[in-house]
Amino acid sequence: MELKRIVGYEAAKLVKDGDIVGLGTGSTTHYFIKKLGERVKKDEIEVMGIPTSYQSFFLAKESGIPVTTLNEHDIDIAVDGADEVDPDLNLIKGGGAAHTMEKIVDGSAVRFVVIVDSSKIVDQLGSMPVPVEVIPDAMRVVQRNIEIIGGAPALRMAERKDGPVITDNGNFVLDVAFEEIGNPWDLEVELNSIPGVVENGLFTGLADEVLVGKDGKVETLKRI
Amino acid sequence: MELKRIVGYEAAKLVKDGDIVGLGTGSTTHYFIKKLGERVKKDEIEVMGIPTSYQSFFLAKESGIPVTTLNEHDIDIAVDGADEVDPDLNLIKGGGAAHTMEKIVDGSAVRFVVIVDSSKIVDQLGSMPVPVEVIPDAMRVVQRNIEIIGGAPALRMAERKDGPVITDNGNFVLDVAFEEIGNPWDLEVELNSIPGVVENGLFTGLADEVLVGKDGKVETLKRI
Amino acid sequence: MELKRIVGYEAAKLVKDGDIVGLGTGSTTHYFIKKLGERVKKDEIEVMGIPTSYQSFFLAKESGIPVTTLNEHDIDIAVDGADEVDPDLNLIKGGGAAHTMEKIVDGSAVRFVVIVDSSKIVDQLGSMPVPVEVIPDAMRVVQRNIEIIGGAPALRMAERKDGPVITDNGNFVLDVAFEEIGNPWDLEVELNSIPGVVENGLFTGLADEVLVGKDGKVETLKRI
Amino acid sequence: MELKRIVGYEAAKLVKDGDIVGLGTGSTTHYFIKKLGERVKKDEIEVMGIPTSYQSFFLAKESGIPVTTLNEHDIDIAVDGADEVDPDLNLIKGGGAAHTMEKIVDGSAVRFVVIVDSSKIVDQLGSMPVPVEVIPDAMRVVQRNIEIIGGAPALRMAERKDGPVITDNGNFVLDVAFEEIGNPWDLEVELNSIPGVVENGLFTGLADEVLVGKDGKVETLKRI
Repeated sequence: MELKRIVGYEAAKLVKDGDIVGLGTGSTTHYFIKKLGERVKKDEIEVMGIPTSYQSFFLAKESGIPVTTLNEHDIDIAVDGADEVDPDLNLIKGGGAAHTMEKIVDGSAVRFVVIVDSSKIVDQLGSMPVPVEVIPDAMRVVQRNIEIIGGAPALRMAERKDGPVITDNGNFVLDVAFEEIGNPWDLEVELNSIPGVVENGLFTGLADEVLVGKDGKVETLKRI
Repeated sequence: MELKRIVGYEAAKLVKDGDIVGLGTGSTTHYFIKKLGERVKKDEIEVMGIPTSYQSFFLAKESGIPVTTLNEHDIDIAVDGADEVDPDLNLIKGGGAAHTMEKIVDGSAVRFVVIVDSSKIVDQLGSMPVPVEVIPDAMRVVQRNIEIIGGAPALRMAERKDGPVITDNGNFVLDVAFEEIGNPWDLEVELNSIPGVVENGLFTGLADEVLVGKDGKVETLKRI
Repeated sequence: MELKRIVGYEAAKLVKDGDIVGLGTGSTTHYFIKKLGERVKKDEIEVMGIPTSYQSFFLAKESGIPVTTLNEHDIDIAVDGADEVDPDLNLIKGGGAAHTMEKIVDGSAVRFVVIVDSSKIVDQLGSMPVPVEVIPDAMRVVQRNIEIIGGAPALRMAERKDGPVITDNGNFVLDVAFEEIGNPWDLEVELNSIPGVVENGLFTGLADEVLVGKDGKVETLKRI
Repeated sequence: MELKRIVGYEAAKLVKDGDIVGLGTGSTTHYFIKKLGERVKKDEIEVMGIPTSYQSFFLAKESGIPVTTLNEHDIDIAVDGADEVDPDLNLIKGGGAAHTMEKIVDGSAVRFVVIVDSSKIVDQLGSMPVPVEVIPDAMRVVQRNIEIIGGAPALRMAERKDGPVITDNGNFVLDVAFEEIGNPWDLEVELNSIPGVVENGLFTGLADEVLVGKDGKVETLKRI
């Protein structure tokens, strides 16, 4: 928790007066948004946030950050968490089922900063499954196509409703385990080429830098 | 668990060869659908199911019950659970966030049978909150309108995704506590008259009979 | 066209500096939004708009009106068109299939102003069908329930896509003809009580005033 | 019209007793579905249809073809129209805004048969724009990304509702003109890799054969 707080706060310092800010989803980004809200009040910077989920929308509102949309504004900086980060700054995201809107927002930002604690840094992506957002009617067909390319898909089930988790877009999430992700670039494209897949949780070539919370400090990894 | 099983199994006996069957959602209905699937195989009855949720769709499929839709067929008998049942057989439903489709399906059935264990039988509805499905953009306005008529709404949060629970229809659920529900008929209409409310979990005047599991037996309550 | 322009422009004068403004949908509201955008530029009033549809969102953006949401702000004044207006200022809306969001927005405004040309003024509602937004899976059941209460429903078909019109919320529209609408208040409630109905196009008791374009002038009707 | 009828009827002959049949969308497929319904009645073949849209669902129902879903059954043969067909049997589809579900259904069929009149046969794809289904919040970002790869996107506007066409999945359609589509395979993948794109109307490598209505006769093109 403490490490998440540290990187979240550090990222809030990167935002400049006048920025349009992509607001990621999840427990680490939570600290970022809270701190950004404080800066809006105390430092009197003027920013507008573009949320990646209902969660970050409500948090922005609570924190006093005015909200706008991608259809109105371009994003200067997006700050988001990740479930895994590899040495090339490729990511797995989607534990919170918000990866479709996250990729739209993060991918359109001039600067995309990832914030994680050190437990998320891996040598190779794939210890955790890749979340894949799927149109409900296509579920079984997508599952089969995913198995053909070597994945083991599991429909994510909900806990506070009966049946599967439904995303903010009204779709299902398949959590897809792969024995090994040799080439995340190819896999990302391949998954998105399956009809019925809306978006997958592989984010390759998008992150500009990663702030890592480790031993009470923040380390920055940059894409070369 | 045992009581849920008993009433679920008992309800499966009510289905006749050739019936179109509304398939409720939840842990009690689970036993009904499983048993109905067995009857399809063993007794060789021919039925078609109309699910009230993705959950009951997948369970029907697993259980070997062919599935159809309300846009194709009328329902002879619907079997569904409930969170509370009052002496007039009025219900609160929606713990599983499926009450909109449940009301559409159950409400269109020639015979609507509720199955519960005895813990769900109450003198007056309202110990548990009334689930209200709401269009996301209208959430705050609906909350305010609900407070005006005496309810205390809480947005239901998800656990396997970040942010609020999203229903199978892509909407939010407000769980609305009322001090007392004097007249469930009026409240049901009143809630549905609030712009932005899709459907609420009060089911008044719909249930034809209620099978109650109690002390290892099944008791039947009928509407007079 | 000329009359629509006149009332649209007149309504734009009603907006005050600092207002949060509900932005209706349709060809008359088009002129209102355009003119409001001019006032933002020329008169340098500061307002924010809350759109009732994708159409009014895009028009607001084009016109330079900053946009916000109902989940962030309360509405001071909403301006919207109508398909019919009766002597009690009850309305039929929904020709543009946006009536659900319109009722949410217009119904939450401190002041709701309707703008129409004189052709929309009727002695009694019902010459045109009442649009009813319906969850697709419930269509046939809703049609039957509507027929029981005396309506003749017709599924609205699209022209630039195959099949039915889909609303901004992803639903169908039934255009329901009634021989006579004796009591629009009761009918509005009755339609919304049918499971599967999201919202209908009867707006009773909501309009505070109506600006009517007639013979090149604007007449104002107020609710007593 | 006559040519559409001829190929539609011819395709209906390809369906065998016991087949699960993918039911395409559009004016040519209309004849196929109608004729298939006749075969169900007259020839007493038993088939089940899997619709690609609300339009084909309703037409199947009218025609007496029992309907099922991809989550229950695999497809033996899918029959669908196209807006353009090139010599490699690559297609542009999506004039009816149903291309996402069409690609899911057609792409999963053991045998995918395209039916067109001869006006649809082209030397190279691209005289008509490529329909791209887009998540509404991502519209502007997707437009920009499409322009970067050389496309000219136009948001498809509706006629029987205000604002843009909404697909059966609740999304927008961008009709994207390209000066030339050199390599449709690459373009199909490239478009689907843009975050916010749900599916595009390029169907490369999917069609097994094309029935072409020409001069009152049917010609068959097969993929080599």
